[in-house]
Amino acid sequence: MEFMEIVKTRRSIRKYLDKDVSDEAVNQVLASVQWSPSWANTQCWEIVVVRDPAMKKKLQASLPPKGNPAFKAMVTAPVVLLVCGKKQTSGYYKRDAATKFGDWIMFDLGIATQSICLTAHSMGLGTVVVGLFDHDKAGEAAGVPDGIELVAMIPMGYPEKSGSPPSRKSIEEFRHDDRF
Amino acid sequence: MEFMEIVKTRRSIRKYLDKDVSDEAVNQVLASVQWSPSWANTQCWEIVVVRDPAMKKKLQASLPPKGNPAFKAMVTAPVVLLVCGKKQTSGYYKRDAATKFGDWIMFDLGIATQSICLTAHSMGLGTVVVGLFDHDKAGEAAGVPDGIELVAMIPMGYPEKSGSPPSRKSIEEFRHDDRF
Repeated sequence: MEFMEIVKTRRSIRKYLDKDVSDEAVNQVLASVQWSPSWANTQCWEIVVVRDPAMKKKLQASLPPKGNPAFKAMVTAPVVLLVCGKKQTSGYYKRDAATKFGDWIMFDLGIATQSICLTAHSMGLGTVVVGLFDHDKAGEAAGVPDGIELVAMIPMGYPEKSGSPPSRKSIEEFRHDDRF
Repeated sequence: MEFMEIVKTRRSIRKYLDKDVSDEAVNQVLASVQWSPSWANTQCWEIVVVRDPAMKKKLQASLPPKGNPAFKAMVTAPVVLLVCGKKQTSGYYKRDAATKFGDWIMFDLGIATQSICLTAHSMGLGTVVVGLFDHDKAGEAAGVPDGIELVAMIPMGYPEKSGSPPSRKSIEEFRHDDRF
């Protein structure tokens, strides 16, 4: 696929084929995190690769049981990636926040998340980004230590089918020229 | 280029050829924002495309004059993209923050930023993400209204040359299996 086709055809995928994802494929996805840019190259990311069904079940329990379309995907996906980051590194200069936004961990993990989503899609893998869950409960289940935040969980597997895209704003709606 | 080659060879570019970036090229980069995933498809992004030299100069004045390697790039790049977002949409359910992280604006703008960086690179364009500046001063210069945050500025142009990559952690350093 052409690069822009990969960007434009990536969808949230919540149903997967009964087909494993090789460790080589997982590492290729992680290589896209490794090569992502980050604040002053701080690389605050830490990724947990979950294949254990019991762990997936525990993590699923941190989602609201109703209203989250990714609830089932947490246990049916062959792999769930936990996107974590070290606090107070990105956005910091020595021990102080360098901007009014404080910790840039969310920004850098957003960058890493898009690397994961696009790279997975380029390999024929589907992903869905899960952000709505009890982060402390999930972090405790996965043994995430103090000083590290678990921010997003990404079920990943070969898509059963691809969906139609949700509607998007036109470029004109969010583009401004020279000033807002 | 292969997709992974685009991911692995993208560098921060701070010196540009004296060559304009067409409006068509800018819109192709913005299409990658348009197709980025976001919290519940909220698409909180707003992008200002700055070509006006006087505006670049004003924005540059919000950077610390020393120690920021992107200082010159703010005025020498043919285009500077201002990555802005609407507050209290991403991460919110109705009027309340849905997680302990509050506003996910930084996460979604991180996603959009990586879309910009990778798409630009796939088109032969160089970018550098600038996060260290006085955000209120820059926002005021660009006329960013209340309720919108200017988070990052991205000078963009055809690279004079590409640099060597800063060192990266190995995958083993940030990969964990089944639990942290």
